[in-house]
Formats: sequence, structure tokens, C-alpha cells
Amino acid sequence: MKHLLGIESLARSDIELILETSEAMLEISQREVKRVPTLRGRTVINVFLESSTRTRVSFEIAAKRLSADAINVSASGSSLSKSETLNDMARNLAAMNADVLVVRDSTAGVPQMLAERVRVPVVNAGDGCHEHPTQALLDVFTARQSLGSLDGRVVAIVGDISHSRVARSDIYAFTRLGAVVRVAGPPTMIPVGVEALGVKPCYSMAEALEGADVIAMLRIQQERIEGALFPSVREYSQTFGLDRRKLALAKPSAIVLHPGPINRGVEIAPDVADNEPSRILDQVTNGVAVRMAVLYLLTGGQP
Amino acid sequence: MKHLLGIESLARSDIELILETSEAMLEISQREVKRVPTLRGRTVINVFLESSTRTRVSFEIAAKRLSADAINVSASGSSLSKSETLNDMARNLAAMNADVLVVRDSTAGVPQMLAERVRVPVVNAGDGCHEHPTQALLDVFTARQSLGSLDGRVVAIVGDISHSRVARSDIYAFTRLGAVVRVAGPPTMIPVGVEALGVKPCYSMAEALEGADVIAMLRIQQERIEGALFPSVREYSQTFGLDRRKLALAKPSAIVLHPGPINRGVEIAPDVADNEPSRILDQVTNGVAVRMAVLYLLTGGQP
Amino acid sequence: MKHLLGIESLARSDIELILETSEAMLEISQREVKRVPTLRGRTVINVFLESSTRTRVSFEIAAKRLSADAINVSASGSSLSKSETLNDMARNLAAMNADVLVVRDSTAGVPQMLAERVRVPVVNAGDGCHEHPTQALLDVFTARQSLGSLDGRVVAIVGDISHSRVARSDIYAFTRLGAVVRVAGPPTMIPVGVEALGVKPCYSMAEALEGADVIAMLRIQQERIEGALFPSVREYSQTFGLDRRKLALAKPSAIVLHPGPINRGVEIAPDVADNEPSRILDQVTNGVAVRMAVLYLLTGGQP
Repeated sequence: MKHLLGIESLARSDIELILETSEAMLEISQREVKRVPTLRGRTVINVFLESSTRTRVSFEIAAKRLSADAINVSASGSSLSKSETLNDMARNLAAMNADVLVVRDSTAGVPQMLAERVRVPVVNAGDGCHEHPTQALLDVFTARQSLGSLDGRVVAIVGDISHSRVARSDIYAFTRLGAVVRVAGPPTMIPVGVEALGVKPCYSMAEALEGADVIAMLRIQQERIEGALFPSVREYSQTFGLDRRKLALAKPSAIVLHPGPINRGVEIAPDVADNEPSRILDQVTNGVAVRMAVLYLLTGGQP
Repeated sequence: MKHLLGIESLARSDIELILETSEAMLEISQREVKRVPTLRGRTVINVFLESSTRTRVSFEIAAKRLSADAINVSASGSSLSKSETLNDMARNLAAMNADVLVVRDSTAGVPQMLAERVRVPVVNAGDGCHEHPTQALLDVFTARQSLGSLDGRVVAIVGDISHSRVARSDIYAFTRLGAVVRVAGPPTMIPVGVEALGVKPCYSMAEALEGADVIAMLRIQQERIEGALFPSVREYSQTFGLDRRKLALAKPSAIVLHPGPINRGVEIAPDVADNEPSRILDQVTNGVAVRMAVLYLLTGGQP
Repeated sequence: MKHLLGIESLARSDIELILETSEAMLEISQREVKRVPTLRGRTVINVFLESSTRTRVSFEIAAKRLSADAINVSASGSSLSKSETLNDMARNLAAMNADVLVVRDSTAGVPQMLAERVRVPVVNAGDGCHEHPTQALLDVFTARQSLGSLDGRVVAIVGDISHSRVARSDIYAFTRLGAVVRVAGPPTMIPVGVEALGVKPCYSMAEALEGADVIAMLRIQQERIEGALFPSVREYSQTFGLDRRKLALAKPSAIVLHPGPINRGVEIAPDVADNEPSRILDQVTNGVAVRMAVLYLLTGGQP
């Protein structure tokens, strides 16, 4: 594995390798001295051209717990055309002997484009509506923590499937690990032909959640809803928001995931977000471990 | 001590413990190799939602000199309601196994609120008009450096007492250590009933400075003065600004403090700020030591 | 050498010392473990009051590869008059026992002014239209890598000579090392009396490039051109932009430099920027090494 640009191109064995490596990394963050010398003297550059506190902090902590030097670069505000700036910036960072570039951008395909132009491993930290592979890896990691093998497990992904990079990456990750994936949301938020990804579209929560083992709620962009994709936020919440009543439709052992930040009371009720069977804070904890594993493996670490 | 949210709740012995620990920390910053392994593998996250170069840098240096991993988070510009974002952000950072959250916010009570919701020690780095405990700790530390015991010493705090978190924290810290505290400023800047804090309000510099051992000048928010609280900046400066002439009203051995950044020529004359008996740069040096002590003690260090 | 404020005041032997030290530093960045303990426990503060991703990252990487603690400070947006803020900020950072201040500012002379007021070594990372000494040092380092000694070599610096701090620093650095320097650009971009710096003004590329060993292209501020200094960007590009045809005017062994970021198709054709004999990415690599050498020497390192 040279880069981590998306889950789509990963084999099941690739994903399993990352998850197994993540297990070992998780243990490090639970020590009092949360630091191993593995990546001492390596340079990890976080290029976050779309703002994101949580994911950037997670990658920065991951790099530092491996003793790498972590450098942050945020949007530059250059007057140049964006693609040129980005290309040249990435080639500059590579020329400074960076060992990994972690790239977030609001445009799909930017990490891929940069990966083609630099000899340094690139990690996609979220690109437009395309993919967010480390989020999906931490999602499947968290699901396996609770459920063991995902083979045959039923996963319901709920929200604006069309515009969510988390949904896309989750679909690839869960199906690759043998789960049965359903996607749910209003018709305006489910892409036509989504069945081609091996998932079943559902247009009601009852249909989506019946017998589900994993409920992966997506963050709703409230500004997208009003008028354009759905009548109102309130109606969205009543129809597709997860509350205790709807949660009861799933298996008793079902767990709830959310990539954060949460719109409390919109796509998920506070009571559901903050209590069993929510795994939302476990996801955050596991995110550091998964990112440590990715940085480790991309810089030549052996599993 | 689980958190450091303010001075108000500290006992004299708590303050003395921090000051004694700070002595040892001060020595570290005077070495050529200003780094000890004490907090290796610990994660200190500076959450500065109100901008502050100096305090943030001081905490960041403090963390790094103890070998902790220091992570900076600044205002997120989220469209969510603020309290929700903050709570969830803090719980996320805690879930990443942070060891300390250092929090500055323009709203009083935010560090307290977060401390109630996470299991990670929280340090208040300044919250609205409430408290700025590490500033007060470095102030009393600096005063003790020059004067020894503060018991019975006379301290004059001058400026906009009503709106100053530094004033509040200083009042608690100096009185707790046995000093006699006077507060001075125009009547519009001194809270009604301030005597309940054990201090004496003064409405002239002559009254405030006579026999004073410590003169703690506050930074004036110039935009607050014009018209609303005082006729003009120039008149403020003439009446309550500290110059050599007014300084002569205090004890010959008196020292001058200021939390910075200084409005030169407004609340303090440049000549007074930059020369004996100003301790302003000592305060900055001591600030790193005090913050090292706080980080050390909150992460379980033994005094 | 107490500070590095510009090349103008450096002797040839000073420059050669830095370049020789840079050779050793370059080797460190080519290791797998790109970190030496040389500046462990030292505090390097990057004060970038004019935004610059590349130079800031280069200094930050340089500091970290030497194991120094690197702290970033960016523009503060203070309402105080700027010179006061800067002075006080620098004195504060010095009081925190900083070992080096790296300063970039849009105003010429700011690093010099700060150097006069603090006892900490100051590195000028670019000040207005004045100097950018580490850029010039990496330029001469890169030229020597390809050409060996620069004595008698012909260097053509092309662009807006009047407003370029890179041009000024390059003129000093190349002439001090024995090169013959020509500056080229439209008459509106070449300062009157530039000959006093020991360089020859040229008003055509043919004149500038004939027999040149080094072609140092400058970044053009496109917003400066339109109307004021030149009829149009397109005409500038045709007249003074470097393409393969104009490159052929120089020696067959000539190399091409550019400080970045590149305006592709304006001052340099993409084909020239990205291929032999461009040394643009080598410059970036060497920039880290030169900055490591400067940090090392200013903190008392022996060559």
C-alpha cells in the first residue's frame, strides 16, 4: 500500500491488516506514557485545506504518539488557481523530505491528484463528497470491537447518502468485510443506482433498521435540507432522526455510530447519542489508533 | 486538585504548593537544555477559543519543556450553537486520551462547564470577566520573588476592576496569601460591594498607592472607555495611569506588575513599564514556570 | 554572528561557513531518521506576521530535525500600533527564554528593530522589500551544488528587482561569492542606480542571459503589473518570462532557480519549471538544510 486514498480500492485483506495493526496502536493510547519511538525522525505534514478541528487533531495526536514530527498547513488563500497551488505546494512539501502528507480538501480527487505527482505517501483525510477512508476504518474497527466478525451483519447507514463521503467509504468498508449494507434517507438524498455498490436503498427507518446490528447515522448539513432536499429540519428529524423509539426497531444488541460533529436533536437525539448503545466516543478514541496504524504502515512499518 | 478553574476555590496551601513547584520549574527554563522528561507521552491540548498569542505560547512552551505533546485548537467557526459545540469538542478531545485541556474562552464559566463534562483535568486560561488563575499565580509568584512573604503587604490593583478577570483572580490570590488588597479606578469601573471580597475600594491613586508594596496595573480596553466609563483615554491616563510621579506615592521598595499586552502611555508610562521597579518581563518568565507547575500537578505529579 | 538580518552585512567567510554547515545538515534530511539531538531543549519561535506557508514550514521542519521545540506565532490582529505590539511581543517571547526568534513581516526593518531590543538571536525570514537572507543562502547553496565555485560565474536575476527582497539578498550573496550578477526586467522594475550594488542592469532577456550560468527568476506580483509597471501580464510573460527559447540564450550548462510559489506561464513556463535544468525543488530541499545550519550556528553551534 503506497497511499490511502479511499476504501474502494482496498481488498478485504488490506482492511484487515490495518485493523489488526490498529489493535496494537489502541493499547499505546491507554498507557500513561502514550508514546512509542516508531516514527522518530519522520515528518508527517497535515495539509488541511478544508477546516476540520477534530480530524486534524486526531492525525496530529496519532503522529506525535508515534514520535513523528507533525507539521500543520492550513488553507493558504493564494490568488493562484487552486490546482496549481496545491500541486506545487505538495511537491514542495515532498521536497522537504516529508514522509507522509495527510490531505483534506473540499474538492473530490485532490488527494488522488497529489498522490500522482509526489513520491510521498498521501492519506486522504476527506475529499469533497468522495471518500473519508480513515473514518470508515474507525467505523468498522468500532463495530468489530462490539460485534466481532462483521460477516453477515446488517448495517444501516442513514442520512444524506448522496453527498456524504463518510457514507461512500462506509459502504465500501462494511461490504468488503462481509456485512449487508442498507442505506436510508429521503429519495432526494439517495443516489440513483446506489444498488450497484451492493447496498439496499430504504426509504423509511422501519425498513432500514429492522434487524440491524449497526446504525451509522450521518451528520446532516442543515443548510442543504431546507426546501431543496426535504421540507424542513423538523420533519427530517421526525422521519429520519434516530431516537429511542426508532432505535427499538433494530436488534437489541445493535450499536449506534456517528462521525461527529453531532447535530443534537436533528439526526440523532441527545439521549441516544450520549448513552448505550452509542459508540460515538469509542469511535473518537479508535480514530487515533486507526490513524496511527495508517501512518505506520504507509511509512514502511511491518504489521 | 483535579482542575484549575479559578483561584476563588483554592486554599492558601493549594496556592503555596503551586508556587513551590513553580520554583523548581523556573530553574529548568534557565538551563541550556530546557527540557525534562516529566510529561513524556502526555497530551496537552490548548483550546483557545478567544485569541491570545502570549498565553497560548506560554502554555505551549510549558508543555513542551515538560516533554508533553502540545496540540493547539483555535476557534472553529462552527454554525452550531456554541455550548453544544464546545461540550462535544471537549468530550472528543478527552476521548482522544488527552491528559489536560487548557481552555480560554470569551464567556465566563466555559472551563467550569467543560470540567463537569469530561474526566480530563481542565485549566482555565482566562474565561470572560470571570477568572484567569495562572495569571494571578504568576503575579503572586513574582511578588514573592521580590518581597518574600506577602503577609501584611499592601497591594494596589488599578484599572477596570469590574471587567477584569485578572483583577478578580489577583484579589483572591493576594488576599489568600495574607496581603491587604486595595482596588482603584473610576467609580464606573469598581463593582458595587467589592468590599465583600475583602478589598478596599479607592477612587484616587493617592489613596491607592500610599504605602503600597505591589502596584498591579490592569490593561485598559480603550474601546470601553470613551464616553461610557470615563470621559477620555487622555483623562484616564492622567488620573489612573501609572507614571513616575504617581509611583513615588508607593513605598520606595514597591514593585510594578502588568499582565500585558501593555497600552503604553495609557495605563502605564513607557518609562515605568520598562525600568525598575517594573517586574513585567519577570512575570512573563515566571508565567512559563507557573504553567509547568500546574500541568505537572494536574497530571498527578508529586510536589 | 549574533543575528541573521540580511546578507548585506555578511562577509564571504560568513556565507561560506553557513554553506559548509548546510552540507552536513543536508545529509540529515536524507536519513530515514531525520532527527539529531543538537538543539534538544532549545525553543525556536516562528513569528510570521506576513503569511507564508512554505517558509514557515521549512523553518519549523528545520527546528524539529534538530530536536528543538518549535512554536508558531502568526499575525495577532491587535488594535495597538504595530511597532509597539511587535516590540513588546518580541520582548515577551525572549522573556520566555526563547533561543531564536524567526521573524517574517511585511515591513522592511522589523527583524532589525526587534534584534536591537531583545537579547535573543533573530533570523529575518523576509521583511518587506528589504532582505530574505535564508532564501539567498539556499540559492547560492543550490548553485554551488551544480556549478562548484561561483567565482566568475554569470548570474542573471530576472523580474521586479525594485520590489523583491529575494533579488536584494541574492545580489549580495552571489556577488560576495565572486559571481558576476546581472539584473533584468522592464525599466520600471529596475531601481535607478542599481549599479552601485555591483550589478549590471539589462533591459532585455537576450542581454541578460547570454553566457549566463545561473538564471534566477523572481515571482511576479501580478497585481503590480497591470497598467502600473507593465502593459499586461501577457506581454510581461512574452518579454521577460523564461521559456525554452529564451533559456537557449544561456550557457548549455546553465541552471534555473525560482524562490516559489511559481506563477506558471507568467514568469516561467511550466516546461522549464518542471524539468532540467530547473533546480526549483532542490532549492526547497536545500532550504531546510540551510535553515538548520542557521539555527545551529546562531544558538552557539560550532561549525
